Amino acid sequence: MEETSTRTIERIGEQRKHVMERLGRIRRRIAVMSGKGGVGKTTVAINIAALLAENNSVGLLDADIDCPNVNKFLGITEKFSVSGGKIKPVEKYSMKIASMASLQDSEDTAIIWRGPMISHAILQFLESVEWGNLDYLIIDTPPGTSDAALTLMQLVQLSGVVIVSTPHPVSLTDANKTINMAKQMNVPVLGIVENMAGGIFGSGVEKLAESAGVPFLGSIKLQKTLSNMTSKGVPAVKDDKNLRKDFENIVKGLLLHQQKD
Amino acid sequence: MEETSTRTIERIGEQRKHVMERLGRIRRRIAVMSGKGGVGKTTVAINIAALLAENNSVGLLDADIDCPNVNKFLGITEKFSVSGGKIKPVEKYSMKIASMASLQDSEDTAIIWRGPMISHAILQFLESVEWGNLDYLIIDTPPGTSDAALTLMQLVQLSGVVIVSTPHPVSLTDANKTINMAKQMNVPVLGIVENMAGGIFGSGVEKLAESAGVPFLGSIKLQKTLSNMTSKGVPAVKDDKNLRKDFENIVKGLLLHQQKD
Repeated sequence: MEETSTRTIERIGEQRKHVMERLGRIRRRIAVMSGKGGVGKTTVAINIAALLAENNSVGLLDADIDCPNVNKFLGITEKFSVSGGKIKPVEKYSMKIASMASLQDSEDTAIIWRGPMISHAILQFLESVEWGNLDYLIIDTPPGTSDAALTLMQLVQLSGVVIVSTPHPVSLTDANKTINMAKQMNVPVLGIVENMAGGIFGSGVEKLAESAGVPFLGSIKLQKTLSNMTSKGVPAVKDDKNLRKDFENIVKGLLLHQQKD
Repeated sequence: MEETSTRTIERIGEQRKHVMERLGRIRRRIAVMSGKGGVGKTTVAINIAALLAENNSVGLLDADIDCPNVNKFLGITEKFSVSGGKIKPVEKYSMKIASMASLQDSEDTAIIWRGPMISHAILQFLESVEWGNLDYLIIDTPPGTSDAALTLMQLVQLSGVVIVSTPHPVSLTDANKTINMAKQMNVPVLGIVENMAGGIFGSGVEKLAESAGVPFLGSIKLQKTLSNMTSKGVPAVKDDKNLRKDFENIVKGLLLHQQKD
């Protein structure tokens, strides 16, 4: 294990150089994070990406290495085609999409990797996927403030993070942790999205945005979240007029608050 | 970073010996896992532990190191008292409880640790907390199949895992990954709990239990989950007659399927 992790770390050093070159061709790199799991990060990432892709060249990276769900949400069963060490991303809804799920033979297999391998896999996606020139790379992340979040904030020059939270107090606490992590690592917080809004907990997410001094980007109501909890493999913005409107507002806020090039 | 991780791994070796001695005094060690976040792992872990604690000596370990939520769900704001390198767990509802939250000055601070530190922290809780003699140690885990799950399955002799899933297809896929991980690591799966049941997705969790050949322990209805999504800091089994009945069934199933000593 010790040796493996030393080798992994060396490889990460090499990778980093290549990754930096690659990132030069991606204008904005935005990670969607939450702290707590199950608050709708993947849904938010997918819908922001799908809207942006209507007028921009957009990549969508699933950085949840051990439980990659982007493909399932988008109805993608395709595997990557690899040639000359380069990975061709899957294209759907005008997005270039890369997820561990496109590398796995079966979605039932657990990817049992410790942190250094998780970091390595994220960097490999940035290095080896043929993203080409992108206006936006939207990155869906696993919950927590450990390896994946840390690697993205340390090694990938993020343009910023979008935080997703429900109004539940536990979600707010964990979202606030991620905001503080971003501040500590000098990564701009582009704003907070409230998911599963309008239940018994009131407007805690808007208050959190205010107290943390970050933009509040908008809400998606619990009722709408539940009614759209289907598995059609279609982004809500392509399928539901009301949800499209909500996400349009969120993306407008995001474009407004993103930093100038 | 390289040196840190080498030193961490050495310490883990030493720790392991102490942990094994400690574990000898804990009759059954049960981890609650899911794969996907936000499916109700913490709620299930707390309520199983609270019910068992009515007739057994029970410890509750929050192994979600970077987003520890057990204290918040139980209304615990107490910090640990430490003397002679030993940590006295917090006692509430007849349980001995240990969570990173009892070590943190502020719940707003992000714990930004890579995997080896996460593993180290979990082992430290097993080593340094004065659990005494326990009938059960219930372990709440973070989502995913990376460091925390791996450390628990590799280094802690688990009596078994309880899987939590909602009927959403993505949750089922991730739960199945965790079941396959447990099988691969020779850890018994004691059963699956269905949370947020009765929505549009039908009985996928029961089908998963059947196809994976593991016991189905019972369901908690979405309506009940939502109505109990308060933050009173009281376990549902102490507060809601219907939910108590659901959890009693789940615990009965668990006791039935646990292996003989």
